[in-house]
Amino acid sequence: MPATEEEDAWVWNHIKAEAKRDAEAEPALASYLYSTILSHSSLDRSLSFHLGNKLCSSTLLSTLLYDLFLNAFSSDSNLRSAAIADLRAARERDPACVSYSHCLLNYKGFLSCQAHRVAHKLWTEARRPLALALSSRIADVFAVDIHPAAKIGKGILFDHATGVVVGETAVIGNNVSILHHVTLGGTGKVGGDRHPKIGDGVLIGAGATILGNVKIGEGAKIGAGSVVLIDVPPRTTAVGNPARLVGGKERPSKHEDVPGESMDHTSFISEWSDYII
Amino acid sequence: MPATEEEDAWVWNHIKAEAKRDAEAEPALASYLYSTILSHSSLDRSLSFHLGNKLCSSTLLSTLLYDLFLNAFSSDSNLRSAAIADLRAARERDPACVSYSHCLLNYKGFLSCQAHRVAHKLWTEARRPLALALSSRIADVFAVDIHPAAKIGKGILFDHATGVVVGETAVIGNNVSILHHVTLGGTGKVGGDRHPKIGDGVLIGAGATILGNVKIGEGAKIGAGSVVLIDVPPRTTAVGNPARLVGGKERPSKHEDVPGESMDHTSFISEWSDYII
Amino acid sequence: MPATEEEDAWVWNHIKAEAKRDAEAEPALASYLYSTILSHSSLDRSLSFHLGNKLCSSTLLSTLLYDLFLNAFSSDSNLRSAAIADLRAARERDPACVSYSHCLLNYKGFLSCQAHRVAHKLWTEARRPLALALSSRIADVFAVDIHPAAKIGKGILFDHATGVVVGETAVIGNNVSILHHVTLGGTGKVGGDRHPKIGDGVLIGAGATILGNVKIGEGAKIGAGSVVLIDVPPRTTAVGNPARLVGGKERPSKHEDVPGESMDHTSFISEWSDYII
Amino acid sequence: MPATEEEDAWVWNHIKAEAKRDAEAEPALASYLYSTILSHSSLDRSLSFHLGNKLCSSTLLSTLLYDLFLNAFSSDSNLRSAAIADLRAARERDPACVSYSHCLLNYKGFLSCQAHRVAHKLWTEARRPLALALSSRIADVFAVDIHPAAKIGKGILFDHATGVVVGETAVIGNNVSILHHVTLGGTGKVGGDRHPKIGDGVLIGAGATILGNVKIGEGAKIGAGSVVLIDVPPRTTAVGNPARLVGGKERPSKHEDVPGESMDHTSFISEWSDYII
Amino acid sequence: MPATEEEDAWVWNHIKAEAKRDAEAEPALASYLYSTILSHSSLDRSLSFHLGNKLCSSTLLSTLLYDLFLNAFSSDSNLRSAAIADLRAARERDPACVSYSHCLLNYKGFLSCQAHRVAHKLWTEARRPLALALSSRIADVFAVDIHPAAKIGKGILFDHATGVVVGETAVIGNNVSILHHVTLGGTGKVGGDRHPKIGDGVLIGAGATILGNVKIGEGAKIGAGSVVLIDVPPRTTAVGNPARLVGGKERPSKHEDVPGESMDHTSFISEWSDYII
Amino acid sequence: MPATEEEDAWVWNHIKAEAKRDAEAEPALASYLYSTILSHSSLDRSLSFHLGNKLCSSTLLSTLLYDLFLNAFSSDSNLRSAAIADLRAARERDPACVSYSHCLLNYKGFLSCQAHRVAHKLWTEARRPLALALSSRIADVFAVDIHPAAKIGKGILFDHATGVVVGETAVIGNNVSILHHVTLGGTGKVGGDRHPKIGDGVLIGAGATILGNVKIGEGAKIGAGSVVLIDVPPRTTAVGNPARLVGGKERPSKHEDVPGESMDHTSFISEWSDYII
Repeated sequence: MPATEEEDAWVWNHIKAEAKRDAEAEPALASYLYSTILSHSSLDRSLSFHLGNKLCSSTLLSTLLYDLFLNAFSSDSNLRSAAIADLRAARERDPACVSYSHCLLNYKGFLSCQAHRVAHKLWTEARRPLALALSSRIADVFAVDIHPAAKIGKGILFDHATGVVVGETAVIGNNVSILHHVTLGGTGKVGGDRHPKIGDGVLIGAGATILGNVKIGEGAKIGAGSVVLIDVPPRTTAVGNPARLVGGKERPSKHEDVPGESMDHTSFISEWSDYII
Repeated sequence: MPATEEEDAWVWNHIKAEAKRDAEAEPALASYLYSTILSHSSLDRSLSFHLGNKLCSSTLLSTLLYDLFLNAFSSDSNLRSAAIADLRAARERDPACVSYSHCLLNYKGFLSCQAHRVAHKLWTEARRPLALALSSRIADVFAVDIHPAAKIGKGILFDHATGVVVGETAVIGNNVSILHHVTLGGTGKVGGDRHPKIGDGVLIGAGATILGNVKIGEGAKIGAGSVVLIDVPPRTTAVGNPARLVGGKERPSKHEDVPGESMDHTSFISEWSDYII
Repeated sequence: MPATEEEDAWVWNHIKAEAKRDAEAEPALASYLYSTILSHSSLDRSLSFHLGNKLCSSTLLSTLLYDLFLNAFSSDSNLRSAAIADLRAARERDPACVSYSHCLLNYKGFLSCQAHRVAHKLWTEARRPLALALSSRIADVFAVDIHPAAKIGKGILFDHATGVVVGETAVIGNNVSILHHVTLGGTGKVGGDRHPKIGDGVLIGAGATILGNVKIGEGAKIGAGSVVLIDVPPRTTAVGNPARLVGGKERPSKHEDVPGESMDHTSFISEWSDYII
Repeated sequence: MPATEEEDAWVWNHIKAEAKRDAEAEPALASYLYSTILSHSSLDRSLSFHLGNKLCSSTLLSTLLYDLFLNAFSSDSNLRSAAIADLRAARERDPACVSYSHCLLNYKGFLSCQAHRVAHKLWTEARRPLALALSSRIADVFAVDIHPAAKIGKGILFDHATGVVVGETAVIGNNVSILHHVTLGGTGKVGGDRHPKIGDGVLIGAGATILGNVKIGEGAKIGAGSVVLIDVPPRTTAVGNPARLVGGKERPSKHEDVPGESMDHTSFISEWSDYII
Repeated sequence: MPATEEEDAWVWNHIKAEAKRDAEAEPALASYLYSTILSHSSLDRSLSFHLGNKLCSSTLLSTLLYDLFLNAFSSDSNLRSAAIADLRAARERDPACVSYSHCLLNYKGFLSCQAHRVAHKLWTEARRPLALALSSRIADVFAVDIHPAAKIGKGILFDHATGVVVGETAVIGNNVSILHHVTLGGTGKVGGDRHPKIGDGVLIGAGATILGNVKIGEGAKIGAGSVVLIDVPPRTTAVGNPARLVGGKERPSKHEDVPGESMDHTSFISEWSDYII
Repeated sequence: MPATEEEDAWVWNHIKAEAKRDAEAEPALASYLYSTILSHSSLDRSLSFHLGNKLCSSTLLSTLLYDLFLNAFSSDSNLRSAAIADLRAARERDPACVSYSHCLLNYKGFLSCQAHRVAHKLWTEARRPLALALSSRIADVFAVDIHPAAKIGKGILFDHATGVVVGETAVIGNNVSILHHVTLGGTGKVGGDRHPKIGDGVLIGAGATILGNVKIGEGAKIGAGSVVLIDVPPRTTAVGNPARLVGGKERPSKHEDVPGESMDHTSFISEWSDYII
C-alpha cells in the first residue's frame, strides 16, 4: 500500500472512530452518523451517499446522484486523495473544525468542492449538460456557485463558503484558502479566458471580489472586502476597494509565510492602516 | 400570430430541440429533461412545473405551487414575454450560458425572477400573505430575497444571483444586469418610498450595495463592491466605498454603450485607478 | 401571570388572529397557516413544528428535529421570551414586516436565530456534535452560518439574513440589528477568543465584515460594506474599507439614538462624504 | 344549469360545508381539509389534487399526475358526474359513511374508482403505457387492481376495497356494490373476452371470486366467499364454493329489491342454510 | 413500581438490547434501528416516531402524527400496556416472530392495531373526522381497515394482517388471534349494532368472513376460509362455507385449549373431513 | 457468451426497445421510462433503481436499498436469471401482460418476488434483521408478505399478487403460477417445518389457502377459493372448502398439461360441478 493510501486509510479510520464516539455519546445523532458514515465501507461510499442525499431533488433522484458520485470516485483515485487533502486542510487551518467527521458531514464548502470535482470530471468528459445540472444543484443547496469548467487544486479550504462564485476559466492552485462571499469573476460578455488564476498557497479574505484574467501569485494574500482588478505578485498582500498592494505598487511588502495555510487574516492591519491614512 | 408570439414560439422550440439533443447524448439526464421540458406542451407549463418542484416544501406542496404558477402564466401573457426576454438576456450577455435550456433549468437568477413576477402579480392583486410566503420560498431555496412589491422590468439578467436583496419600493428598469450579492436596500425603519430606482440598461457589479431612494440613471454602471448612497447620472460610472462618479462629481465621464447589455465590468479599471490613487 | 408571560401571550394571540384573518382571505394559503400556526396550542409548538419541517433532511428527520426543538423550548423559557423579543424587533424596526406572523413564518433571519439558540443550548450542554449538525442545517437551508458557541442576546433583527457568518467566540448583545452578508469573523488559524464582541443596540449595515476580537461599543453603527478591524467606541460610526470612525479617530462624532433600534442606515452620508472627499 | 349540474354543485357545496365544520372543530385536521378540499374551486380540482398527492411516487411526480387528472376531469364531464354518483352511492348504502367528505378523502374504493376512470379514458385514447402505469400506482397505493381496459358504470360502491381485482375484459354495470377481496378474474392464458360481466344493481359479497366470461344478471346477489363459475340469472342469489343458485339451478328464488342498493348481505342466511344442510 | 410497569420496562429494555445487538451486527441497518428504537427514551416515543413516519403523507405530516401519537400514549397508560400485551402475544404465538423488536418494527398487524387504538381514543373523544382520517391512513399504508369505533381488547395478534376488515360495531375480546384477510363485516345498509362480537381467546383462520351481529363465544375457533353467519358457542369450532359447527349444530365438539393462544389451525382436519365427506 | 446470457441480453434489449417506443409515443411517461429503464446500462441496475425507489421509506433510504440490491444482483447471477425467467413467465402466461417492460415496471408480483430473492439471500447469509426489514417493506408497499426464509424457484408468476402470504418453511418449485390472496400458511404456534411444499408447474387459483406441511405435487392445480389441508398428488386438481381431489380421493383425475404454464383456471368447472352437486 503506497504512503498516500495508508494516509487515506488513516483519515477514514479516524472519521469512523469519531463517528462511533459521537454516536455513543448522543443517541439522537446516532441514526444520522450510521447512515452517513458508519454503515459505509469506504470514504468513497460515505461521500457518495451524503452528497447524493444532500444534492438530490424531486427531478434528480438521490439514487441517480449516488450512482454518479460512486462511479466517479471509484474510477478516479485523484478525487479521493483531493478529498482527503481538503479534510486535512480544514482540520489544520480552521480552529472551529473539531474533527474530520465534522468537516465531512457539515462543511458546505468541503461538500461543494467534492461535488464540483465530480462535475468538473463530467465536464472534461464532454458530459456538459449533466455537469451543469450538478453545478446548479450545488448552487441551490449550498449557495456555492462554481462553474464546472473551473480547475481547482488540492488542499482547498472553502471556509463558510456561502456565496462563493467561481467562473468558467478560473484556476485555483493547491493549498488555497478562500473565505465566504468570494468572487472569482469575469470581465463581461466576451467569452474566452476571462477569470482569475489563483496561485498555490493564496488566502482570499471574506467578501473579496477578484475580476478578470488576473494572476494572484503564489502565497499572496487578498484582504477581506477587497475588489481586485490587478495582478498581485507572489507573497504580497492586496487590500482595499479598489485593491492596492500593501507597501506600494512598486515595492510591495513580501511576507514569508504561506497565507493559504497560516490563515493570518489581520496581522497586516497596522501596516495597512498606516499605508492608507 | 404577432411577431412576439412567433419569437416566443421560436425560443420554446429551440429549448425543446436543445433538451432533445442533450437527452439523447446523456441518458442519465434524460429523465430530468423529459420531466422538466420535453413532456410539456408550452413554456408556461414547463416553467410552472419546474418552479413548483423547486420551491415546494412540506407545508407548501408542489401541486399547489404548480397550480398557482400555471394560473398566473396562463392569465397574463406579460409574464411569458418577460421570461422570454430574460432568457434572451442570459443567452446574449453571459458567455457561460451555453443554451436557453441551461438558463431555464439551472439559473437561479432566472428562476427567482420568474417566481418573483408571479409573487408581484399576487401582491398587486392584494393577495399579500401568499405573495410573501412565495417570496420567502424564493429566499430559502435560491438565496435571492426580492420583496414582492418590487417592480422589475424585462430583459433582466440576475447573474449567479446568490445573495441578491431587493427592497419593497425598489424599481428596476428594462435590460438591466445585476450580479450576485447586490443589495437595493432601504434607509431605515421609516416606511414609504425608500429604495433605489434603477434605470434601463444599468449594470450593477458583484457585491454592490445601493441604499436609499436614489436614482441610478439609464445606462449607468456601478462597480463591483461599491457602496452607493447618491444618485448616479445616466451613462456614468460609480465606483468605490463610498461610491464616487468616475471623472468626478461635477463632470463625470459618460460612456456610449449600454452596460446592462455590453456587460463590461472592468474597462474602467485604468480610469478609476488613475482617479483614485 | 407575570408581565412577560402576559406579553408573550399577547403576541401569540396576535399571531393567531393574523393567521386566522389571512386564512379566511386566502384559501390557497389556509392549509399552510393551519399547519404552521393555527393548529398549535402555543408558540413553542408552532415554532418547533415550523423549524422541524424547514430544517429536516432525508438523514435528519422532521420528527427528530421537532422533538429536539420542543424539548428545548419547553425546558427553557428564555428561548421563548427571546423569540418574542425578536418578533417585536422585526415588527418595530423593519417597515416591510407587516405582521408578527409574517416574521414567524417567512423571515429566515428570525428562524435561523431561534434555531441557533437551540443549537447554542445543546453546545452548552456538551452535546456538541448535535449542535454542529443543527448549525449545518441552518447554514444549508437559510445560508446563515452561526457557530453554535456564539452568544446572542435578545431583541435581535437579522434583516434579510442571507450570508450572515458569525464565528465561534463572537458575542452579540441585546437589541442589535444586523443586515445580510455581515461577517463577524476570526483572525486566523489560532484558536481562542478571536471574534468580535458586539455591544447592545449596535446596527451593522449590509455586507459589513468585522474581523478579530474587536469591540464594537454600545450603540455604535457600522456602515454598509465596511471592513472593520478596529475597536469602535460606543455611539460612534465606523465606515469604509478599511473602516474609520466618522469624525476622526481622536474625536469621533457621537450620536444620540440607538442605531440598532432606530435603524438609520444613511443619515451619516453627508458627514461621511465630507469627511472622505 | 341542467338538473345534473345543479345536483353536482349541491354535492360539492355540501362537501365544502362539511369540511368547513370539521376544520373549525378540529384544528389538527384543518390543514389537511384546507389543502384537500377548502382551497379548491371545484370538485375536479379537489379530486385531482388529492389523487395526485396520493398516487405520486418518486418517479411519477404529483405535479404530473395532478395535471393528468385535471385535464381528464376538465375535458370529460362524465368523469365528474360518475364521481358524484359514486359519492351518493357510498353515502346512501354504507351506514359507516358519515359524510360526503369522508368518502372523498378517505375511501380507497372511491379514490381507486375515480383514478381508474381516468386510466380507462387514457386506455381508450390509445395511451396504454400511461394507463398501465397509473393502474399500477392504484394497485400499489390502494391494493385495488383494476385493469385500465375494464368498463365500470356509475353509482359504484367499492366498500373497503382492499384486494379487489378486476380483469381486462370485465364489465361492471351501474349501481353495483362490490365488497373487498372480490375478484372478477379470467380463465387462463388465452386472450380475448374472458372476464365476468356484472349487470346493474348487483351486490357482490366480501371475498367472492367470479371467474370467466360469465354473466351476473341485473340485481343478482353473490354471497360472501363464493366462487362463481356460472351465469347467475337476474335477481337471483348465488352462494357457496362452488357457487350454486339459492332455490336451485332450475327454479332459483327471485328477490324484489336491488341488492346493489339495498345492500342486504345476510337475509338469505336461513334460506341458504336450509338449502345446504 | 407496580408489577405491570416493571413488566413494561422489561420488554422495552429487551427491545433496546435486541436493537443494540442487531445494529452492531449489521451496520446497514444501524441507522434504521437507532432512528426507530435506540434514540428513544421510551416505548411510547419509539412507537410514536415509527407510526408517525409510517403513516404520514404529503397532506398529513409526520410531525403532526408524531405529536398526536405521543399525546395519546402519554395521557393514557392503557395504550402502552395494550401494546406490551400485543408484543407478548406475537412473540409467544407466532414462531416466525424472532424478537420483540422484529414485531415492533415490522409487523403491520401490530402497528395497525396500535394506531387503531389511538384512532379509537379520538373517536371516543368525539374527534371523529380526525379518527377517520387516521384510519384511512392505516388502510392505505397497511391494507388493514378497522373502523375507529371498533373495540379491541389486549393481547391481540393480527398475523400477517393484510386485508383485515373490522366494522364499526365489532367488538374483539382479549387474547384473540386473527389471521390475514379476515372480515368482521356488517349486514347491510341499515345502521346500528350490526357487526360480530368476538369473545376472549378466539382464533380466526385466514380468509374467514364473519358477517352480522353474531357472537363468537370465548375460546371458539373459526376455520380458514369459513363464511360465518351464525353464533358460535364457546370452545367450539366453525368451519366451511357456509360455516357449520364441528360435531354438529346440536352437540358441537368442545375443545379444552384456548385457540387464540394455542394457535392450532389444523388439528381439526380429520374431524372436519370426516364430518363433511 | 453462454446461451443464457444471450437470452438475458435479448430480454434486456427488448425491454429497452419497448421503453424507447413508449417514451416516444407518450411524452408524459418519458421521464418515468428514462429514470427506471432507459438511463440504465443493465437490467441489474434498472431493477435495483426501481426497487430501491419503490421500497424506500423515510427511515430506510432509497440509496441504501439501491446499494443493497445492486450488490446482490452483481454478486449473484442467479438472481438475474431468475428475474428473466419470471419476466418470461408473465409475458407468456398472462394475456394482460403486453410487454416485458410492463411487467418490470408495474407488476407488484414480479417486483415483490425479485425483492424477496434478495431478502432470502440476506437470510441465508445470516443477515436476518436486514432480511426481515426488507420483507416488511415488501409487505407494506405491495401487500405481499413472503417470509425471507421461504424458498422460491424460477419462472414464477405471482399474478395480481395483492394479499399473497408465504410462510417461513414454504418451498415453491419452478414454473409455478400463484394468483392473488393465496396463502401458504402454517399450522400454529409450534416452530419447525410447518408450511406447504409446492411442486414444479403448479397453478394455485385466487384466494386459495393451503395450510401446513402438505405436499402439492408437480403439475397439480388448486381451485380458486379452496382451503387445502391435504397432500395433492401430481397432476391432480383439488377444489373446494375443504378441498377435495377432483375425481375422488382414491382415483383422482389426472391432467396432461402443466397448469402453472397453461393457466387453465376453469376447464374443470363441469367436472367439478358434476362431482359436487
